[in-house]
Amino acid sequence: MLWALDQRELPWREEWLELRSASQVAEAIRRLAIRGAPLIGVAAAFALALELQRRPAAEALAPAYEVLRTTRPTAVNLVRALDRVKAAVQEVGADEAADRAWAEAQAIRRQGEEDSRLLAQHGAELLAGVRTVLTHCNTGALAAPGRGTALAVIAELHARHGLAKVLATETRPLLQGARLTTYELARLGIPHQLIVDSAAAGLVASGSVDAVVVGCDRVAANGDVANKVGTYGLALAAQATRVPLVVVGPTSTIDLESPAGDQIVIEERDPQEVRQAMGSPLATEDTPCANPAFDVTPAELVSALVTERGVARPVSGAAITALALA
Amino acid sequence: MLWALDQRELPWREEWLELRSASQVAEAIRRLAIRGAPLIGVAAAFALALELQRRPAAEALAPAYEVLRTTRPTAVNLVRALDRVKAAVQEVGADEAADRAWAEAQAIRRQGEEDSRLLAQHGAELLAGVRTVLTHCNTGALAAPGRGTALAVIAELHARHGLAKVLATETRPLLQGARLTTYELARLGIPHQLIVDSAAAGLVASGSVDAVVVGCDRVAANGDVANKVGTYGLALAAQATRVPLVVVGPTSTIDLESPAGDQIVIEERDPQEVRQAMGSPLATEDTPCANPAFDVTPAELVSALVTERGVARPVSGAAITALALA
Repeated sequence: MLWALDQRELPWREEWLELRSASQVAEAIRRLAIRGAPLIGVAAAFALALELQRRPAAEALAPAYEVLRTTRPTAVNLVRALDRVKAAVQEVGADEAADRAWAEAQAIRRQGEEDSRLLAQHGAELLAGVRTVLTHCNTGALAAPGRGTALAVIAELHARHGLAKVLATETRPLLQGARLTTYELARLGIPHQLIVDSAAAGLVASGSVDAVVVGCDRVAANGDVANKVGTYGLALAAQATRVPLVVVGPTSTIDLESPAGDQIVIEERDPQEVRQAMGSPLATEDTPCANPAFDVTPAELVSALVTERGVARPVSGAAITALALA
Repeated sequence: MLWALDQRELPWREEWLELRSASQVAEAIRRLAIRGAPLIGVAAAFALALELQRRPAAEALAPAYEVLRTTRPTAVNLVRALDRVKAAVQEVGADEAADRAWAEAQAIRRQGEEDSRLLAQHGAELLAGVRTVLTHCNTGALAAPGRGTALAVIAELHARHGLAKVLATETRPLLQGARLTTYELARLGIPHQLIVDSAAAGLVASGSVDAVVVGCDRVAANGDVANKVGTYGLALAAQATRVPLVVVGPTSTIDLESPAGDQIVIEERDPQEVRQAMGSPLATEDTPCANPAFDVTPAELVSALVTERGVARPVSGAAITALALA
């Protein structure tokens, strides 16, 4: 069985989900009870292992792989983690498959924790001296193993020399910033302010921010970044004010098979997410909506990509490839 | 007595407020039951007239003027409308003051209706051929006399040759786009989609939009535009994709006494607006917030300013002054 903190209930309730099958984990990922590109990868790896404890690999592997793979289309860590477990299982006999899958999932989680530790170091060195940071969505311990990605860099900066303030965007429609990032920042003791998403550009322009630091869901081979919808607008604001935009993620988010950002599939989610916020209706039920969950920021707007293996700066196809294949 | 449609209750309930004093109208403006820069001006003019029906001008004028003036700091139409009523009253004897004030308020409203008609014509000529428009906040009949400002241009474009689609941003924190613009677009029969604010930049970049059309709360002498928070980010997105950003408003929103946008006072509103949406909590009660209600878009990002007197294009100090003094 897997236990997962239900992120839809935070910050008001710490409720744990008991997940007993790959399809239950898949449902939790689809509904964003489990979210954050690196954490989705870890959860999917354990879900595949869980399924192999219940049924023979020959019968369980293909359908469980498929139900998990199709939960979210944009993050690449998901497929990568599933492929690792699948490959590990194929090396061994049927009686060892479940144990081997579980060990591989554990290895993915441990590697994620180590990635988080290393990228926090690299990011804090890059941003030494920065006093105020703007971040988007949630990229902390709730989104990735260890201390997370972008928020791990922010936590490390605060530990090293203290941050004056972190501006956290609320991140509509699902409010990961309002609910999760403020929850993590408060627990970390980092001074912060919550803002609506559209206040970010004006606050960057007003000089309130030394750096914009965000995570990533998929990085294309040329350095284009798919991340939570709104990231591209923050990148434009950072560029206009000559503030660095730093993207943080493990190299497992680099997808050399996507040559450029325009080839990344952008998930279009349920319009109902736009029509309401935490259960309150914001528009009538028949209002037509568009609800892209991600957008693409061109590589030329990204000042640096921070990974566990080091920093690509400037962000070029060559630098990205070198990190991915290191 | 004044009757005002309570815009906080739309689109679910059409509730009318009965307002019997200047302070009741001021409260309705402060709480955004009455909103939209031009409509605030009209409401304040009628509120001053209302107060003069209740009490002698010598006693009522100064405090009523002050309570109304201080409701919202950013829109300039408010002060301008109050000054017009005050000047009209000072020309006449005490027994005529109330009638004269009421007549002046009626004149301001009629002029607003005529402004709306004319700027819609100018805007539709400028944007002839445009098929898809993105707009922000609410700028229609709920925000200004007649058919409004930016939304009047959109309605006129649709009447002339039919629009394929209008993208309406929800406009956090108070959701004037989700609640009011979709309500007006549905009544006008214009195809539309609601989006979260931070989806706008990516959708503009993807080629979904031929023009961004917004209103304005105050235009500085150099053409810088203060408007609903988020407008500056939309301007950056429009510039990056070479899509025109068209700002629409009556010349009463031009303030020649503000030399540039950085001298416009930006209203900071209650953090509680950020912590919730339509009554649902989005963050814990102790979450620190910043909540600027407006931002400033530099003149160089504005492709054209459409007023009832014609179009400034490009937007320069000389063109703005010519329109304001025409």
